[in-house]
Amino acid sequence: MIATDAAHPAWLPTAATATLGSRRIAVIEGDPLADTVAAEAAEAVAAHGGSITRFAGDAPRAEVVFTLAEGLADEAYRIDRADGSVTVAASTGRGLLYGYFHLVRLGEAAFAGVASETHAPAGAIRILDHWDNMDLHPVMGAVERGYAGASIFFDAGDGLPGSGTIRDDLSRVRAYGRLLASIGINALSINNVNVHAREARLLTDDLPHVARIADTLRPYGVRLHLAVSWASPMMLGGLETSDPFDAGVRAWWAEASNRVWAAIPDFGGFVVKADSEGQPGPFAYGRDHADGANMLAEAVAPHGGIIHWRAFVYNHTQDWRDRSTDRARAAFDHFAPLDGRFRDNVIVQVKYGPMDFQVREPVSPVLAAMPQTRVALELQVTQEYTGQQKHAVYLGPQWAEIMRFDFGEGQTVASLAQGGFAAVANVGADEFWTGHPFAQANLYAYGRLSWDPLADADDLLDEWIAQTFAAEDAAVARTVRVILAQSWLTYEMYTTPLGVGFMVRPGHHYGPDVDGYEYTPWGTYHFADRDGIGVDRTVATGTGYAGLYPSPWRETYESLETVPDELILFFHHVPYTHVLHSGKSVIQHIYDTHFEGVERVRANVEAWNAVSGSLADQDLAARVNERLAEQLRSAIEWRDQVNTYFLRKSGIADAHGRRIH
Amino acid sequence: MIATDAAHPAWLPTAATATLGSRRIAVIEGDPLADTVAAEAAEAVAAHGGSITRFAGDAPRAEVVFTLAEGLADEAYRIDRADGSVTVAASTGRGLLYGYFHLVRLGEAAFAGVASETHAPAGAIRILDHWDNMDLHPVMGAVERGYAGASIFFDAGDGLPGSGTIRDDLSRVRAYGRLLASIGINALSINNVNVHAREARLLTDDLPHVARIADTLRPYGVRLHLAVSWASPMMLGGLETSDPFDAGVRAWWAEASNRVWAAIPDFGGFVVKADSEGQPGPFAYGRDHADGANMLAEAVAPHGGIIHWRAFVYNHTQDWRDRSTDRARAAFDHFAPLDGRFRDNVIVQVKYGPMDFQVREPVSPVLAAMPQTRVALELQVTQEYTGQQKHAVYLGPQWAEIMRFDFGEGQTVASLAQGGFAAVANVGADEFWTGHPFAQANLYAYGRLSWDPLADADDLLDEWIAQTFAAEDAAVARTVRVILAQSWLTYEMYTTPLGVGFMVRPGHHYGPDVDGYEYTPWGTYHFADRDGIGVDRTVATGTGYAGLYPSPWRETYESLETVPDELILFFHHVPYTHVLHSGKSVIQHIYDTHFEGVERVRANVEAWNAVSGSLADQDLAARVNERLAEQLRSAIEWRDQVNTYFLRKSGIADAHGRRIH
Repeated sequence: MIATDAAHPAWLPTAATATLGSRRIAVIEGDPLADTVAAEAAEAVAAHGGSITRFAGDAPRAEVVFTLAEGLADEAYRIDRADGSVTVAASTGRGLLYGYFHLVRLGEAAFAGVASETHAPAGAIRILDHWDNMDLHPVMGAVERGYAGASIFFDAGDGLPGSGTIRDDLSRVRAYGRLLASIGINALSINNVNVHAREARLLTDDLPHVARIADTLRPYGVRLHLAVSWASPMMLGGLETSDPFDAGVRAWWAEASNRVWAAIPDFGGFVVKADSEGQPGPFAYGRDHADGANMLAEAVAPHGGIIHWRAFVYNHTQDWRDRSTDRARAAFDHFAPLDGRFRDNVIVQVKYGPMDFQVREPVSPVLAAMPQTRVALELQVTQEYTGQQKHAVYLGPQWAEIMRFDFGEGQTVASLAQGGFAAVANVGADEFWTGHPFAQANLYAYGRLSWDPLADADDLLDEWIAQTFAAEDAAVARTVRVILAQSWLTYEMYTTPLGVGFMVRPGHHYGPDVDGYEYTPWGTYHFADRDGIGVDRTVATGTGYAGLYPSPWRETYESLETVPDELILFFHHVPYTHVLHSGKSVIQHIYDTHFEGVERVRANVEAWNAVSGSLADQDLAARVNERLAEQLRSAIEWRDQVNTYFLRKSGIADAHGRRIH
Repeated sequence: MIATDAAHPAWLPTAATATLGSRRIAVIEGDPLADTVAAEAAEAVAAHGGSITRFAGDAPRAEVVFTLAEGLADEAYRIDRADGSVTVAASTGRGLLYGYFHLVRLGEAAFAGVASETHAPAGAIRILDHWDNMDLHPVMGAVERGYAGASIFFDAGDGLPGSGTIRDDLSRVRAYGRLLASIGINALSINNVNVHAREARLLTDDLPHVARIADTLRPYGVRLHLAVSWASPMMLGGLETSDPFDAGVRAWWAEASNRVWAAIPDFGGFVVKADSEGQPGPFAYGRDHADGANMLAEAVAPHGGIIHWRAFVYNHTQDWRDRSTDRARAAFDHFAPLDGRFRDNVIVQVKYGPMDFQVREPVSPVLAAMPQTRVALELQVTQEYTGQQKHAVYLGPQWAEIMRFDFGEGQTVASLAQGGFAAVANVGADEFWTGHPFAQANLYAYGRLSWDPLADADDLLDEWIAQTFAAEDAAVARTVRVILAQSWLTYEMYTTPLGVGFMVRPGHHYGPDVDGYEYTPWGTYHFADRDGIGVDRTVATGTGYAGLYPSPWRETYESLETVPDELILFFHHVPYTHVLHSGKSVIQHIYDTHFEGVERVRANVEAWNAVSGSLADQDLAARVNERLAEQLRSAIEWRDQVNTYFLRKSGIADAHGRRIH
């Protein structure tokens, strides 16, 4: 068994390999990842009646052949099919593994017709960042912004500070590696970017155990990365400084890197959150972020290591009275001037929007502002602000929209992300991996988009459904599609309107609190008063944020005539009576979307009720039932709080006379 | 030494006994509490040059004689003075001890002129309730609503569940007992009324250690009480029910009581929070609170024990949309119908107001609604909602106003509180006992008012200052008086206006969040919209709460013509333009008080700065400096958030054009 007994098979149930598993398969020998392909194939044919052979040299006759060949890029694979047989060729075992799961995804279609296609990933590094803590954090628990139980990597021990360890049993990590390989993820950072004292020691005492995780992931082509504290030389090394210009600091990092790569020769590199939300960083020494990142990059360069340096830097102790400071500008103001100064092995990791993973934000202008820098797009698979895996929210359409965003002259986010893709993971030790079983679709879509950023989000949803529910009745698949296809827009409808963001309960970020962050130091305001709402980020009268975009976007966002409805409150402060392009006033839009959002959730509950009894997997049916009930309760709470808040403030009645409390 | 070295002497520094300690003192023998008087006197004369003798039978010639005499009530004492000598007579040692501290308080005045006065307490039981946890609570920490460090009774051990113990070293408890005796407190409940698993065992395994605390307090005339869980028969006894009509349950409580009184013969009794904020109670069995309290009362009656039963019962999972439910009614609706049904040894403990210890509430109508019941007034000495011992807020004037509140025909709260007085304590292991040294004044005033409810709050403040700062320059005393005398009203000015309450950050309750509880299940709403604010609790159009008062208060509160300004928003929803009796509109009142409140705090900071350098006690000066700085910061935050909130909502500019953000 490759998967563990305890965990749900996600999108790789036995039934998903029925087509491939019924074939005669031949897999080349002599490559460790080809061995992984062979092991996968062996399991599939055992279940479905096919056969497997290994070969060296020329390929034998078989319905499916996996073979190594020259001339393809590192991770690419070529598929040739004709007359019902298929050859997968790649120059590395990793390419073969990706090709294997390509065939699983296609099912019968993999054998139909004649084709010769080569598939290669868009980004060289496609990483997931886990925000897992070793010790239980007193507020955040096992996984910061985690909604799927404990960490699969770490055991929090008895809960006392310092008692966290790396798990002895890594069978869940092994099963996870398999899932990641099947969607093209090739890198994993396992610990929280907020690095506490316990996790800092992953670089030292814990290295033998970190190496066990790397060993577990290696058969799936997944390289291990670690988040490190900028202050490690002080926390671990006893130095008096972390100044990047200090020779002792540079020597400490070089030595630390030597140790890590000695233990794990294919180690990936370090992920760093510096000078952000209380984390230490180079600012303390009067250095900038290029100085800081380059120092680390120099230390890891001899090993081929990479530094993922997060651009999420802003003032989180802002005075809410000060309207001239705009958190949305922060990453741009800090990083754009540094373009060209980062070493080649630094990847600047930029959140997709200028704020913080809201249900709707404009695409971050930083992505277009650093042409001389390897920039990675950072997404949030974990649903911090999108229902915390209690709400069914498929984020594929949001990400696909971001990928296709064109800054001008074909400069899409997909093409600008030369540093690849990064995302905060949504997985834990939960039976279904992700709390809500449907949240698996987000993990799936992220992986697939990071390989092929221009993939269609609906197609990816169908892929995920077809594999995940391969053993279920077709009506189940149809229902899951109905529930998820529009779910991102549904969530937007009943939560925060028109791009204004937040309005969540402070701290845990679940559920509504319209003024929750309005008078706090966090820089996330809506400025609603009795007359209107929104943040003036225009050049003419506001913070100037709109001017950070290249034309035509700066003009598009600057003007009320052209700003898209869904972002109007991000860029403008407007009266409640302002009429949107949709023809509705802002206030009526708020009322209408909040009423409709709830009805959509209610319809989803009914749709699921109609099929849930028929599911073969009644554990999954029950989990989805429970989550949908909570989503409906929460959506009603959102609707009523938001509508009541704005009715009280605006005094404008709903045009349709519906009940607002 | 009676006091420990570590702790501040509070209002009993050596200098406070200068007058008494310079006299020739004689103390009768043969009573344990007379021995305490003698020990106190011995310490005083050792410091100040007087002398002490003990005697049996006739009193010797001395300047101060403490002697036992017939004919006085249990705790009363008679003072006769003439020609510069004083005789203190009491029928019990406890009376002598109270008389001793009476002389300390009076200083030189104790020896002036000719007088014969008898002093006796208003209430038989004057208790302080500690909300101390044995284990560290994950949210509340060592002391629920505690702002003065760890518990003086309990050691939380290594922080793990179950590791809390009763402290080995009870020297702080001893020093505390002395302070309590000096202000007339005669009962102490040491554990949180939210009784967790660990504290439940105070009734069983921990009894030998509980007895050590009782032994430590006994020389100061302070009886020990424990808060118990209603569910103890299930938690501790393994029973399947806590039904008060169940014979097994009754037997369990009888047996538990036998065990407690066997260990502590003068044990006081139990404090119970039942069916409140998630605590178990008789409702689960279809019984009412008289059934519940009487069952416990029966168990403790053979030992002379008392049940303090809290009337703080309400629905804390209310729907904010439901305007017909009014938390303010809850205690009345639950308890008033039960009048006459409680056993004699039950004391129903009623919070002073109908909500929860806000800076301003009307006096609870429950206090006048249960003439056939022993009702105790419950105050909150710990400053949960009044600045958490970071803000200098002397609550004596609030309590004095409550004590004198006349329900009609001379039925004052002081006269109605036949069950005595209770209060939540503000003391912890902090060097100054109370975090803010000035918060000692609240402990002092509570004790003195519980003895003499009609004492003048300003006089009590002066008493406290004179003793506490006996060794300091007179300018210090004057400054402390200036800072504290109006501090309650100052706090009200910059926080929640006109009786509406709350507007605090949920959970910890520190600092402003105007809408923090507005859309929550807690029943604490202000209903502010663009036109007005307040809760309609009238009989005519509101929740009917005003009608729970006897005349003339029901009419006074019902009418906008007669409702006192400071409570208008508690009883009425009014437009921002409504003109108060003061002549100001509601909105202008909000602006004016918030600006003025901050300026008053600023003046206090300046006043303290002018003297703080001259203090002999520079530790205290520094602590007060730090707290005043935080009070000013916090007051500004309150001012700006409240004013901005209401400007945004009302759109009405400040008449004086001051800066509102």
